[in-house]
Amino acid sequence: MEQIPILQLGHFLLVTIQVELHDELAMTLQDDLTTKLAKTGARGVLIDISALEIVDSFIGRALAQIAGISRVMDATTVLTGMRPAVAITLVELGVTLAGIKTALNVDKGMRLLRESLDEPGEAPSAA
Amino acid sequence: MEQIPILQLGHFLLVTIQVELHDELAMTLQDDLTTKLAKTGARGVLIDISALEIVDSFIGRALAQIAGISRVMDATTVLTGMRPAVAITLVELGVTLAGIKTALNVDKGMRLLRESLDEPGEAPSAA
Repeated sequence: MEQIPILQLGHFLLVTIQVELHDELAMTLQDDLTTKLAKTGARGVLIDISALEIVDSFIGRALAQIAGISRVMDATTVLTGMRPAVAITLVELGVTLAGIKTALNVDKGMRLLRESLDEPGEAPSAA
Repeated sequence: MEQIPILQLGHFLLVTIQVELHDELAMTLQDDLTTKLAKTGARGVLIDISALEIVDSFIGRALAQIAGISRVMDATTVLTGMRPAVAITLVELGVTLAGIKTALNVDKGMRLLRESLDEPGEAPSAA
């Protein structure tokens, strides 16, 4: 079952990464996510990595690439649940995760996504 | 990383099962879930099994047990994303998943949970 499920939650997609994201799996995830983005018109992608104890530069790049793809498909990506040790390692490796928003947990990530959707003034909500 | 992450989404907890739920892992999940239920006071548990291609009677029982524990901790369990083949196998195996609500996907599961929370008339919303 080498496939990471992508769950739809309202306007957002949730991806919980629980297994090590090797080459092929990262490609499958990219493909699945773009298909799902096109199909659902989702405006946000939440990627939870709270289960990952190790995130190396390969995974870091794969996540950044997914965020880049989502961006051109008009969706914001938020990375949630990063463990402190993972954050330290990533910075030490020089992986800056540029262009990816982060949040401590899924709840906060959802709030961030909702706010980022409201901001550009897409709905009739101008303060 | 033999641990299934439990994500909090508002009043609910979301568990996405992506790996085969063997004996020890099921126990860990039970422990983690009860701890999280006690800590957060969550009223609903969503278990997504859309990644599972095979659900045997052991997993069926484990899920039923988790639902039973959640119930005595005042939370409703909804099982989402069951594949058609899995549903067929479960019924053939005689696993009825009694006491577990099911929904086709997480979005519908969330709606079901919200409705089940509204019903008992807990908030001042009486039509």
